[in-house]
Amino acid sequence: MNIVHIVFVTLSIIVANEAKVLNKNVDTCQEILGDELIEEIWGYENVKDEILKYVIDGDFKRKTYDELAKFVDKFGARPSGTEVLEKSIDYMIDLTREEGLNDIVTEELEVPRWERGEERITMLEPRVKDISVLGLGRSVSTPPEGITAEVIVFKSFDELENTPDEKVAGKIVLYAPIFTKYGETNKYRTQGATKASAKGAVASLVRSITPFSINTPHTGSQTYGEGVIPIPTAAIAIEDADLISRIHARGEKVVLHIRMFSNLETKVSRNTLIDLKGTQNPEKLVIVSGHIDSWDVGQGAMDDGGGLFISWAAPVILKRLNLIPKRTVRAIFWTAEELGLIGAYAYEKAHRHESDNINFIMESDEGTFAPLGLAVGGSKKARCIVGEVLKLFKSINASTLVEEDAPGSDIGIFTGNGIPGASLHNDNAKYFWFHHTEGDTMNVEDPDELDLGAAFWTAVAYIIADLSEDIPR
Amino acid sequence: MNIVHIVFVTLSIIVANEAKVLNKNVDTCQEILGDELIEEIWGYENVKDEILKYVIDGDFKRKTYDELAKFVDKFGARPSGTEVLEKSIDYMIDLTREEGLNDIVTEELEVPRWERGEERITMLEPRVKDISVLGLGRSVSTPPEGITAEVIVFKSFDELENTPDEKVAGKIVLYAPIFTKYGETNKYRTQGATKASAKGAVASLVRSITPFSINTPHTGSQTYGEGVIPIPTAAIAIEDADLISRIHARGEKVVLHIRMFSNLETKVSRNTLIDLKGTQNPEKLVIVSGHIDSWDVGQGAMDDGGGLFISWAAPVILKRLNLIPKRTVRAIFWTAEELGLIGAYAYEKAHRHESDNINFIMESDEGTFAPLGLAVGGSKKARCIVGEVLKLFKSINASTLVEEDAPGSDIGIFTGNGIPGASLHNDNAKYFWFHHTEGDTMNVEDPDELDLGAAFWTAVAYIIADLSEDIPR
Repeated sequence: MNIVHIVFVTLSIIVANEAKVLNKNVDTCQEILGDELIEEIWGYENVKDEILKYVIDGDFKRKTYDELAKFVDKFGARPSGTEVLEKSIDYMIDLTREEGLNDIVTEELEVPRWERGEERITMLEPRVKDISVLGLGRSVSTPPEGITAEVIVFKSFDELENTPDEKVAGKIVLYAPIFTKYGETNKYRTQGATKASAKGAVASLVRSITPFSINTPHTGSQTYGEGVIPIPTAAIAIEDADLISRIHARGEKVVLHIRMFSNLETKVSRNTLIDLKGTQNPEKLVIVSGHIDSWDVGQGAMDDGGGLFISWAAPVILKRLNLIPKRTVRAIFWTAEELGLIGAYAYEKAHRHESDNINFIMESDEGTFAPLGLAVGGSKKARCIVGEVLKLFKSINASTLVEEDAPGSDIGIFTGNGIPGASLHNDNAKYFWFHHTEGDTMNVEDPDELDLGAAFWTAVAYIIADLSEDIPR
Repeated sequence: MNIVHIVFVTLSIIVANEAKVLNKNVDTCQEILGDELIEEIWGYENVKDEILKYVIDGDFKRKTYDELAKFVDKFGARPSGTEVLEKSIDYMIDLTREEGLNDIVTEELEVPRWERGEERITMLEPRVKDISVLGLGRSVSTPPEGITAEVIVFKSFDELENTPDEKVAGKIVLYAPIFTKYGETNKYRTQGATKASAKGAVASLVRSITPFSINTPHTGSQTYGEGVIPIPTAAIAIEDADLISRIHARGEKVVLHIRMFSNLETKVSRNTLIDLKGTQNPEKLVIVSGHIDSWDVGQGAMDDGGGLFISWAAPVILKRLNLIPKRTVRAIFWTAEELGLIGAYAYEKAHRHESDNINFIMESDEGTFAPLGLAVGGSKKARCIVGEVLKLFKSINASTLVEEDAPGSDIGIFTGNGIPGASLHNDNAKYFWFHHTEGDTMNVEDPDELDLGAAFWTAVAYIIADLSEDIPR
């Protein structure tokens, strides 16, 4: 063989192998779906184009952003259990009715109202410095005079477990793990106080769960495990965590004074359900959703104002275009997500007897940056159908299907039970820069990306709600 | 001509033109410098390699970062006129003496001590919201009860000037220009209060001078013009400025309550001069410099801890390597830069009689990210010499010469007077994200980039200080 031959043969092998892999995947979904269903899905291309055009270039252009801005500017943060959250729910109902959508139901439930009071951490040794702090959800208060104690720093739970109790007892534990992925690192926020308390610590701090910071603390939920003494717990900015870690690593003693106050009550809030009733099977549901509550810091524009508004937009756009699918499209505005998916749990319980009617459940709660596709949970055939639908969105670069076992946060309760569903997969590399901070504002949102998101969300929901076949379990 | 001919001829023309342009430049500097000087400069290649190796891979590796971290962690912010600044100066002197460098002089001067007190802005209408604020340097206080007034928003000074006085009188002016370049946009910070006061405003706010924010206010200096009533003035986070701008643009009234307190005194501080005396012309100086004071927010790690420490490193590294140039290398740690280049002005005045001895003056005060080269001011020949020196730094990608009329902030006083000098040109695209904020911490600094900066700074200073020819005016 001469050199040309070698190159040719090598290339042939590569091409053949690639084709084999591709064909194998294609064949599998093609076989599962059959030509008829595939053809049916591709039949929605014109409807999809109509929706995209209306939202991206037509009368709905910038509408999602402008309505979100008006909403966020008017209400700001909407913490669970507050009057402002209830007023913002009323506002969304009015805004929806203005669109001629009147199938609106609210469902009451009990929610926690965790109210942040004064929070202050001061480093006393080796020098006096204010530490940038945000208490974690449900944290108990310190005594009125605060807590003054030495800090012990851990990079991992293993380090904590391998340290004798007497070295931890009476100290403030600081967890200072470097951020890898949210799902990996946030256990130090959610479980840190419980594990520190079990070792006798008097308070527990965590390096904020973020890859980037401008001295920005990130709050978030945590729960005290059963049987441990609840101790005050807070997130501090990564800069302050790293400062304390460096001093600690030099063998110097770090002493902090912590004053944190809060109040925990039970209040009533509401999930909001907006139906665009299906023409053939109104009892069957394709749900689009986001949560309306937010943390008390920031403005809840990104988490989850964007998800709320693209889910609001779906029935609104379909109504405006008179595109009424066979099944019902239901928009749900979950309440009290941030303190533990309270609204979603209540809905799941209240509607469990009719859960077979959920054909597909969608949630956007990881940002509404440029849509890339969907993270899909469900059976192989469910994913094949959604994957075929996603192929229609090549023109806006939103055709990616990510396989996930239980996508979503609120809807994870449903997808975890085997109900097919998806969360919005979007270009959210900076999402955790702003997540649960004062920086969650309209400045994070982009009008064009929101248009793309609303158009994509609406078209996907329509197609799935209108297909001749249910999404199989 | 066939296609091959056309391609060939086109390529020839391109090559010929490029060569012409290149040759033209090369010829000009080549003619100005002459072969002998160019050869002399290239004779420093081994010395340059020795310095780079020692700092990047040798005993000095990570030293700049580690010493900066110890310094910043120990002292934190070092505002002009404070005891902590003076202690940090003493610390730097001790650190230098430990290296066997004992030609250290401090020169006293009067500096302002502007002390920030409580600062709070609350939006009262259309809803209650805390506004993220930092008062600007030298701002006066509000009355004890604060100021409550309506806001009027301007995108430019032109808009302000074109508005009748009676529409501005009694109001709070908010300048909300979109950030373009620091040098373009910061006039709204430095002159905003004066122009607003002249129109009868009761306070002046500015959208923070930054392209990026996580609800981060940026402080900075401002001066009241003569003859106007000094009014309280502050920067607010761009998110809050944009929120107020949006509400204002919708025709809604925005009312703010401002409480700001501060105190202005005169104190004594010191410039610090560290000399590595030259072997042949000790009276002639190559100055490397950065400022040791910082704003009261953040830790002054980037502004200007990095510049301070690479300038400290230059004589230290040369001493350690026993590389003593013909002229003196003087490191200067300027004091009180942030409130108006006070230290640099004092030095210029005190040393004006011997200013002819400044052969070259260098400053790093725009970050110490990866060095890219120098921004150089001076005569054509001065730039040719520096440009030839910079060619030695191709291996670390630091050969770029940017032509500037008066580079530097502190040294701008000198380069503006025609003294040849340069500021560090570095990969500082994110510099203004952190500038004058609580986010100016060690987390912005990178050990490897600081090594590159220190090595580059030291080698350039050495070569210029050792050349047979002075840098001509």
